[in-house]
Amino acid sequence: MAGNIIGEMFKVVSFGESHGKCIGVVIDGCPAGLELSEEDIQKELDLRRPGVSRITTSRMEEDKVEILSGVFNGYTTGAPICMIIWNKDIRSQDYESIKYTPRPSHADYFAYVKYGGYNDYRGGGRFSGRITAGFVMAGAVAKKLLKKILDVEVIAYSLEIGGEKAEDFTLDDARRYRYENDVRAPTSEAAVKMKEKIQQAISRRDSVGGVIECIVTGLPIGLGEPVFDALDSDLAKAIFSIPAVKGIEFGAGFKAARMFGSEHNDPFIVEEGKIKLDKNDAGGVVGGISTGAPLLFRVVVKPPSSIGLNQKTIDLRTGRQTEIIVSGRHDPCIVPRAVPVVEAMTAIILVDHAMRYSLIPPVIRNL
Amino acid sequence: MAGNIIGEMFKVVSFGESHGKCIGVVIDGCPAGLELSEEDIQKELDLRRPGVSRITTSRMEEDKVEILSGVFNGYTTGAPICMIIWNKDIRSQDYESIKYTPRPSHADYFAYVKYGGYNDYRGGGRFSGRITAGFVMAGAVAKKLLKKILDVEVIAYSLEIGGEKAEDFTLDDARRYRYENDVRAPTSEAAVKMKEKIQQAISRRDSVGGVIECIVTGLPIGLGEPVFDALDSDLAKAIFSIPAVKGIEFGAGFKAARMFGSEHNDPFIVEEGKIKLDKNDAGGVVGGISTGAPLLFRVVVKPPSSIGLNQKTIDLRTGRQTEIIVSGRHDPCIVPRAVPVVEAMTAIILVDHAMRYSLIPPVIRNL
Amino acid sequence: MAGNIIGEMFKVVSFGESHGKCIGVVIDGCPAGLELSEEDIQKELDLRRPGVSRITTSRMEEDKVEILSGVFNGYTTGAPICMIIWNKDIRSQDYESIKYTPRPSHADYFAYVKYGGYNDYRGGGRFSGRITAGFVMAGAVAKKLLKKILDVEVIAYSLEIGGEKAEDFTLDDARRYRYENDVRAPTSEAAVKMKEKIQQAISRRDSVGGVIECIVTGLPIGLGEPVFDALDSDLAKAIFSIPAVKGIEFGAGFKAARMFGSEHNDPFIVEEGKIKLDKNDAGGVVGGISTGAPLLFRVVVKPPSSIGLNQKTIDLRTGRQTEIIVSGRHDPCIVPRAVPVVEAMTAIILVDHAMRYSLIPPVIRNL
Amino acid sequence: MAGNIIGEMFKVVSFGESHGKCIGVVIDGCPAGLELSEEDIQKELDLRRPGVSRITTSRMEEDKVEILSGVFNGYTTGAPICMIIWNKDIRSQDYESIKYTPRPSHADYFAYVKYGGYNDYRGGGRFSGRITAGFVMAGAVAKKLLKKILDVEVIAYSLEIGGEKAEDFTLDDARRYRYENDVRAPTSEAAVKMKEKIQQAISRRDSVGGVIECIVTGLPIGLGEPVFDALDSDLAKAIFSIPAVKGIEFGAGFKAARMFGSEHNDPFIVEEGKIKLDKNDAGGVVGGISTGAPLLFRVVVKPPSSIGLNQKTIDLRTGRQTEIIVSGRHDPCIVPRAVPVVEAMTAIILVDHAMRYSLIPPVIRNL
Repeated sequence: MAGNIIGEMFKVVSFGESHGKCIGVVIDGCPAGLELSEEDIQKELDLRRPGVSRITTSRMEEDKVEILSGVFNGYTTGAPICMIIWNKDIRSQDYESIKYTPRPSHADYFAYVKYGGYNDYRGGGRFSGRITAGFVMAGAVAKKLLKKILDVEVIAYSLEIGGEKAEDFTLDDARRYRYENDVRAPTSEAAVKMKEKIQQAISRRDSVGGVIECIVTGLPIGLGEPVFDALDSDLAKAIFSIPAVKGIEFGAGFKAARMFGSEHNDPFIVEEGKIKLDKNDAGGVVGGISTGAPLLFRVVVKPPSSIGLNQKTIDLRTGRQTEIIVSGRHDPCIVPRAVPVVEAMTAIILVDHAMRYSLIPPVIRNL
Repeated sequence: MAGNIIGEMFKVVSFGESHGKCIGVVIDGCPAGLELSEEDIQKELDLRRPGVSRITTSRMEEDKVEILSGVFNGYTTGAPICMIIWNKDIRSQDYESIKYTPRPSHADYFAYVKYGGYNDYRGGGRFSGRITAGFVMAGAVAKKLLKKILDVEVIAYSLEIGGEKAEDFTLDDARRYRYENDVRAPTSEAAVKMKEKIQQAISRRDSVGGVIECIVTGLPIGLGEPVFDALDSDLAKAIFSIPAVKGIEFGAGFKAARMFGSEHNDPFIVEEGKIKLDKNDAGGVVGGISTGAPLLFRVVVKPPSSIGLNQKTIDLRTGRQTEIIVSGRHDPCIVPRAVPVVEAMTAIILVDHAMRYSLIPPVIRNL
Repeated sequence: MAGNIIGEMFKVVSFGESHGKCIGVVIDGCPAGLELSEEDIQKELDLRRPGVSRITTSRMEEDKVEILSGVFNGYTTGAPICMIIWNKDIRSQDYESIKYTPRPSHADYFAYVKYGGYNDYRGGGRFSGRITAGFVMAGAVAKKLLKKILDVEVIAYSLEIGGEKAEDFTLDDARRYRYENDVRAPTSEAAVKMKEKIQQAISRRDSVGGVIECIVTGLPIGLGEPVFDALDSDLAKAIFSIPAVKGIEFGAGFKAARMFGSEHNDPFIVEEGKIKLDKNDAGGVVGGISTGAPLLFRVVVKPPSSIGLNQKTIDLRTGRQTEIIVSGRHDPCIVPRAVPVVEAMTAIILVDHAMRYSLIPPVIRNL
Repeated sequence: MAGNIIGEMFKVVSFGESHGKCIGVVIDGCPAGLELSEEDIQKELDLRRPGVSRITTSRMEEDKVEILSGVFNGYTTGAPICMIIWNKDIRSQDYESIKYTPRPSHADYFAYVKYGGYNDYRGGGRFSGRITAGFVMAGAVAKKLLKKILDVEVIAYSLEIGGEKAEDFTLDDARRYRYENDVRAPTSEAAVKMKEKIQQAISRRDSVGGVIECIVTGLPIGLGEPVFDALDSDLAKAIFSIPAVKGIEFGAGFKAARMFGSEHNDPFIVEEGKIKLDKNDAGGVVGGISTGAPLLFRVVVKPPSSIGLNQKTIDLRTGRQTEIIVSGRHDPCIVPRAVPVVEAMTAIILVDHAMRYSLIPPVIRNL
C-alpha cells in the first residue's frame, strides 16, 4: 500500500479516481518564489485533453485546473501545492457491466483481487489514464522550474504509431510541430501517416500502440544519485507509472546488445575549449549520472486494452468463461495523449534530482 | 546525494568501493527467524565471481562473505544485517593512469565533475561492476525469503550475447543449465555460440553486449503499489541500478508498438475451475500489479566500456585531446556476470513488495 | 523543504492555509474495506471546532469535511483518501497589519525569512492552529482503524491549565467527561477551575498554557521499530508537529531524573497466568517498543502567542523597534483545542506502526 | 521493521549488536570534500568510552574506529561512509542467565516477544547503550560539517544528576569543562556533587538518573521543514532514539504550562541594526523553524535499569514469578555517557536540515 508519492525533495502525491469527484495532486517541496498561475497549469493540461479531435476519445471533459493551496499573490509560497480538476460528464453506467466481467489486459480483475473487491472500478478508477492529468499538473510546475532556473527543456513526441515511424526530422521540428498535430508527431508528414493507422484501427474496432521518444536539452553534468537513485533508474520508475508503458531504453538502447564496445562508446572531444561527447549512444546518462549531452530515451506504449471486438473473459459471479465487447468511450491509440505525460514525469524527476544536487534553491529570489 | 538505499520495508543499503577496503551491504527490515548462514550468501556470490573461467576477468578475488550483524544462532534476528567482502588482490597502480584521462563511456569523468574530483577513481570506485557483489549478497537473503515463504523462484539467463540468441528452450532448461555454463545461457548449444562471440571480441580487443531475460514463477496476484510504486516501476528502477543496463521491457515489450490491441490483450480463461491468462504478453504485470502469470522481462546490457583499442579522450590536466588504451583486467562481456545480479535486484524488489502487501510476516515462526 | 508528509505505511500529507481556499489532507496507505463516511470524520472534527463556547475563539467556522477520493460505496478502496474543509468566514484584513510587524513568538518573522517573503502570512498561513484540522481528519480514520482492528483506544485530556491541575480521577472519568466540557478536563470539578483560569487570562488580555495527558489502552507488545523509528521517537516527532507544543515526557518523565533505578523499574508479575507489569513508570514503552501496558505521556502546551497586550516587535519596512497589540480573533488558551489533535497524531503514528508490524492488513475482509 | 535509518539527505544507518562482531554505522549523503580521518571520529568516540573512570562501567573496550568506505586521500568522496568498531572483551556468559529471566524495565522481554525469540539478547543486543557508539561516529562527521560550513557548535552537558543540579555557570564554562570531568558537568563544583550522588548509588547497588541540557550556537534562521519535519519534531525523534531518554523540552519547556503568554513570548528587539530576540523562552525554535537564537533543550535520562538489587521478574520457561539480581558490568548512571550521544544525534539532525535547506552543498570546494 501507500505507493502514491514520488520524489525525495520535490514530492508528488497523486489522488482521485476516474469517476470520483476529482483528479488531484499535491506537490510538497516546490521552492518558494516561483511565479505560478492556473493558466500555467491549464496550458499543459490542455495538451493531453481528450475531445480535441476525433482521434482521441469523445468524452468532453472541461478539465479546468483549480489551485487549492501553496500559491499566494501569484507566487509559490513553499507550502504544499494542491491542484485538482473536478470530474464532470461522467456516465458511470457505461462501466457497470465490467464490474464482474473484467476487461482483458486492464487492471480490473487484478485490482479486484488486490483490494478485496473494494476498489472503485468505474472507468478503471485509479487505473484510468485520466489519473495522468494529475501527473501533468505537477509536471507543469516542474517544467516551469526547469526552464526558469536551469534553462532545461523537455521534448517528447510520437516516434512511431501503428508501425508508422517518423523519419528525417530535427529536434527543432519536434519542438515546433509536436503539439500542432493531433498525434504529437514531429513532422506533419508523419502525422498524416500515423493518423491513417489510427483510423484503420478505429474501423477495425481495434487499437494500436507506438513509441514515444523524449529528449531533454540543457542538463548539466551531475544529476543522478547512484547507485540506486541513478538518474536512469528514477526516470524509468517514473515512466513506468504511466499506464500502458511496457518498456524504456536509453540512447542506443536494445541495439546496444549487438554493438561492439568500440562502436557504442562515446569518445570525448574538445570543441572550442570545451569537453564534449562526440556522439550520444549513452543517451545522456552514464553510471547513473547526466553527462551534459541531451538526455534521450524511448518508451513503448502498448495498444489500449479497451477494444470493440469480442474478447474472452470470465464472469466473477459464476467463475465461468464468457465474452466481452468493451463499450463506452475509449482511445484507439494512447500514444498522443501519453506524450505530455512522458514530458511531465520526466520533468518531475529532473527537478527532484536538481534539488537533491542543490541546483534549484529552496527560495527563488526574484528581485 | 544519498541515493544508496532502496526499498520501503526491506531496505538495502550499499557501500564500499572497488579498490577500497571492502564491498558491503546492510539489509534493514529482514524478518526475524529466517535461517541464514554465510554459505547461503556465498553460494550466490560465487555465481557472479570472476576468475571462474577465461571468459570473465582474470582478477582473482576470493570474495568470501562475512556476516557482521543481524544473525544469531543461525537465524536472522530482525536487526540490520551487515555483510561484507574484503577487497584483496588490488593493483591500484593499473588505474592511476585513468585519473586524468577518463575512459569513454565510463563514469570516470562525470563522477569527477559531480563529486568535485574527490571521488575514489581507482577501478571505477563506486561505479565498478564489483559494487554489485553487495546487490547479490542482499539478493541471496531475498531469494531465500521468497522461496521459503512464497515458493517464488527468480530465474535469469543470457538470452543473447554478441548477436547470438538462445532458441528452442524451456524455462526448465534455463533453470537447470544457466549456471552450468560460463555464459549463463539456457542451453549448452547457445553457450557454445555465445562463447565464440566473446572469444572473437577478445581477439579484437573489443567487447560485446547482450540481453538478459528474467522470469519469476509463483507470484500471486497483487504485488505492486500503483500509481508510482507500481511493480514494474520499482523493478525497472532496481534493474537500472546495475551498471551497463540501457533498457528494460516487459512481456511483448517494444514489439507491442506494432501489435493491435486484439493481439496484445491476454484473455482470461478458466482452467480446472481457476481463472488464468491464456497468454502472457503483459509479462506478468498489468496496471502495476502482478497478474499471477510469470513475471517476464528482458534487459539490455551494453558492451563493456573498457576495451583494449585506441579511443579518443581528453587530458583533464591540459584540457586537450588525447588517446587512451584501457589496460588492466576487464571483462569482454558483462552479460554473464550480470545474470545473478538481475536475479538479486529482482528478488529484493519482490520481497519489498511482498512485505508491503503483508505476504511476508515480520517474524517467521519456525515451530 | 518537503516536510508535509508523515508515516511510512500510513502516510499523511498535509496541505492548505488558514486563509486560503481550504485545509486538506491526503492519506496514502489506508487499508481497503474500512467503512467510512463523512460523519465519521465530522464527529472528530467537531471536537476541535472553535465557536462552541466563549472559551475558544469566536470565529464561526462551519468546517464541514468533504471526502474527495478513496471512498466508494461507503468503504475505503485502498486508494489515497483526500479530505478537505473549505475555508469560510475569513477576514483577512485583520491580519494585514501583521505583515510587517511580526507577532512575538509567532512564526511570522521566521517564516518570512525562511520563505523569502513569499509565505502566505494571513492568519499565520501554514503556521495557524487551523492546520491541525487536517490532522484531526486523518486521525479520525486512524482512530477508527485502531478501534475496529485492534480494539485500541486513544484518550487525551487537559491535565492542567493555567496552573490548575485535575486530580482524583480515573481513566474512565476522562473517557466519559473530557468532551462533555469546554476545556476537555477529565472531571467537571477540574473543568470549573480551569475555566476560571482562562477567564482570568481573558480579562487580563493575556493567555495561559497547560499540560495534556494522553493514555492509549489495548496496545499489544511489539509496536515500534528501534533504534530510530522507536515508538516514543515517532510519537514525539508527531506531537511536536502540533503548534505550541514545547515538551513531551513518557511515564514518570522528568521525575525520573530524581528517582533511583529501584524505584523507576517496573517489575514483572504474573496475574492469572499472564505476564504483566506491576506499575507503569515507563509509560508503556521500553527500548522503543510498546510493553502491553497503557501508553502514557504528557505534553506541555505553551500559552498562545497572540495576546491583547502591548508587545515589543520590529517594523520590517524600517528595521526599527515598534510595538504591537494583536487584534483579531484568538484563543486565550489552546489546550482544549489541542486535546483532539494530540489524540489524532497519536492514532496516526500507532496505525502506521501497527501496519509496519503487520497487525493491520492491507485489506479488511468484512465478510 | 526497518527502523534503523534516520535522515532525509544526510542518512544514518545503524547496525551491530552489543556482543556481536561489531558496532557500525553507514552515512549516506555526506558531501564530498570534507577532510576526514579516523582520528576525527576517535576523538568523539573516546568521550563516551566506558572505562575512563570508576564512575562508568569497568568494561574495557578499545573502541577503535575503522573507516571502511567513503573516504579517499583524506577527504570524503560523496560515497557512503561505513565506520565500525570491533567488539572485544565480550563476556557473553554474564548474560546467559537473563535469557529467560528478563530484567525489569530493560527491553529483554519486549524484544523477545516482538522478534519471536530470535533477537540477540546478549548484553541487550540492539538495545544496549553500546549501540550509541554508532551514533557518535556519525555525529562526529556531522559536527565537523556544522563547524566547518556553518560555524555551528553543539554543546551538551549534565545539568542534573541524582537530584544534584549544576548552577551559576555560563555556556563558556560548559564548553570548556564538560569533557574535563567524568560526569560531564559544566563546572567542577557540580562535578564533585554529582559524583557523590553516583557513589551513593553505587554503594546502594542502585542507579540514578538526571537531566542533560543541550545548546546549539550559530544556527541561522530557517532550519526545519514544518509541519511534520519541524526542527523540534525531528530533534525529538532523534533524541528519543537514545536508550533511557524519557522526555524532552525546549526553552521554558514544561514551565510554560504555568506562564502567561505575556511572560513566555520572546519580544523582538533591534541591536546594532540587527533584529534579535530579547530572551529565548522558545528555545530557539518557533513554528518548527530555527529562530537564530541558540537552540536550547533539556532531556531527561532515567536511572539505568540494571541494578544489583533484588527485583521481581518472571521465568519465561515456567511462566512463574521469580527474582533477579542483575550481575555483569553496568553503569550506575548513564547521564555522562549520554552527553556526547545527545550532541551526536543533535548534530545529525541539524546537518540533515541544513542540507534540506541548501545551507550545506553536495561538494565542499576546498580550493
